[in-house]
Amino acid sequence: MNTSSPTDLPPTPGFEYRPEIKVLDCTIRDGGLINDHLFEDSLTRAVYEACVAAGIDYMELGYKADNKIFARDKFGAWKHCYEEDLRRVVGENDTDLKLSVMADAEKTEYRRDIVPKEKSVIDIVRVATYIYQIPTAVDMIKDAHEKGYEVSVNLMAVSTVPDAELQEGLDLLAKTPVDIIVLVDSFGALLPQQIRDYTRRYLEVVKGTGKQVGIHCHNNLQLAFANTIEAATIGANRLDATMNGIGRGAGNCSMELLLSFMRNGKYHIRPILQCIQDHFVPLREKLEWGCMIPYLITAHFNQHPRSAIILRAGQDKDNFVEFYDQWAKS
Amino acid sequence: MNTSSPTDLPPTPGFEYRPEIKVLDCTIRDGGLINDHLFEDSLTRAVYEACVAAGIDYMELGYKADNKIFARDKFGAWKHCYEEDLRRVVGENDTDLKLSVMADAEKTEYRRDIVPKEKSVIDIVRVATYIYQIPTAVDMIKDAHEKGYEVSVNLMAVSTVPDAELQEGLDLLAKTPVDIIVLVDSFGALLPQQIRDYTRRYLEVVKGTGKQVGIHCHNNLQLAFANTIEAATIGANRLDATMNGIGRGAGNCSMELLLSFMRNGKYHIRPILQCIQDHFVPLREKLEWGCMIPYLITAHFNQHPRSAIILRAGQDKDNFVEFYDQWAKS
Repeated sequence: MNTSSPTDLPPTPGFEYRPEIKVLDCTIRDGGLINDHLFEDSLTRAVYEACVAAGIDYMELGYKADNKIFARDKFGAWKHCYEEDLRRVVGENDTDLKLSVMADAEKTEYRRDIVPKEKSVIDIVRVATYIYQIPTAVDMIKDAHEKGYEVSVNLMAVSTVPDAELQEGLDLLAKTPVDIIVLVDSFGALLPQQIRDYTRRYLEVVKGTGKQVGIHCHNNLQLAFANTIEAATIGANRLDATMNGIGRGAGNCSMELLLSFMRNGKYHIRPILQCIQDHFVPLREKLEWGCMIPYLITAHFNQHPRSAIILRAGQDKDNFVEFYDQWAKS
Repeated sequence: MNTSSPTDLPPTPGFEYRPEIKVLDCTIRDGGLINDHLFEDSLTRAVYEACVAAGIDYMELGYKADNKIFARDKFGAWKHCYEEDLRRVVGENDTDLKLSVMADAEKTEYRRDIVPKEKSVIDIVRVATYIYQIPTAVDMIKDAHEKGYEVSVNLMAVSTVPDAELQEGLDLLAKTPVDIIVLVDSFGALLPQQIRDYTRRYLEVVKGTGKQVGIHCHNNLQLAFANTIEAATIGANRLDATMNGIGRGAGNCSMELLLSFMRNGKYHIRPILQCIQDHFVPLREKLEWGCMIPYLITAHFNQHPRSAIILRAGQDKDNFVEFYDQWAKS
């Protein structure tokens, strides 16, 4: 397979590539929120192989969800990411691609379900937390760190968090052994100017600690890619994206756009295009994701997209004017 | 009809509204490039009424194309914008909405087809030109200005123009009586950093002349909205957008996104949502536009999207890997 990038393209204008930058594919983890993680192994394997061929740094396979909250028989394997399920797809992962799982605060039995690193094929644990769950998240970070993992924390829904509270939360996280703090625009409501301001703030918090700042955007306002590259240009070094932008609701930053931007010879866009053509074009016949007006409306009102997801799942899915009116009146 | 914007939303973060900003809807003009301008009068009227209700400043109805190059019986009325066709939809346009037509350099018999302002329902003529057509464009600008119109010039495909040549072109245009110079990303290939750089350059050229800078973006890299608001934040005061982002290939900046951004009480998003729900959701069953990987690929290689449009019109429309390979080898 020809995986080379054309070398005659000029470097990305206005962006100096830094070797510290790492790209994380969260296709199976975030995309799995659409279908209860019921992806076939063949699709998960195709994404894995595309990530390896494309030179992507990390692939997030799913959640380490508590099986008492999320029953095994109601969700696909990538909701729990047991070692035997992971190895069925990635074997011993004898590649340069690092593997990630996400652990939600208050939805993970982390002491039991996150096994010591030497027993796992996983490289990094990403703790997802709302601001009010930070005490739990701090404990999860310590636990994963002590077990030998690289650890990231994804602080969700920052667009709803008052400034002083956010600062307090970030300061608490900066004191933990976490390796990466990820700016997460859960509602897809942040504009580029805000992303730049938040990124500068996160960078300030980690200054001198050796920690990195990451960025995870949603596409409600069709800004996921723009916001990701704006954060990267300013100094965020961990960039999340998904194949064809798959993800809950409006989806995420598209990997194909991000790799088109990263013109540095390290990443190769062609394996991503091939994976999308072979697997995600057909998948779109069965699953819906991407920019649609109901998601614009929830972002406009700085709300979680869940009401828009419910609208799109119903009979009256194109009646977004009534949906807008409900939010405008509330 | 309730056209009010919710007033309890905070102002747009990071963006100070300037009363000089004007929004131009080019739905019928740019969208008409998909269907040879064969829109029903009912659709054109619906867009017109939505623009009026939404508080939009300008609506562009179509081209003033030469009927020797574009035969009347092969194109819809909005390819030529004869007065009788315009008036059939807008009457005497007794509203605050100003009307626009586009006149392409070398495709317009402007001395004959652009009638004096007092005989026309049109308010502004937008001259579209490639860099090498600027001498013709300068004559067209003078002609339209002398006939009494507000005049704009849209300098197309700047992403392919060498710096020195662009400066020379802009300096020539700045000496004309043109009122607005529009930065046009015809290939949808420009990144936010480049848009900011170009916008600053255009602003520098018009400094002290009383002229305004405009912005017209395409959505190949899913950056049309981001680039439009970045240009606006820096100082571009004329912003182009279309209903639901309709436009050739990947389409344009979506009006619904732009008005969601412009939280100033002047613009109302609801009539736009209603127009899209009633007319553009059904239209999508018949016409295709929007972000798709073939358009990403042409933008990636800084090419006109025409080859991608041909791909999407053919049998093998989802074979974008082969399409990528053709460009990568060329």
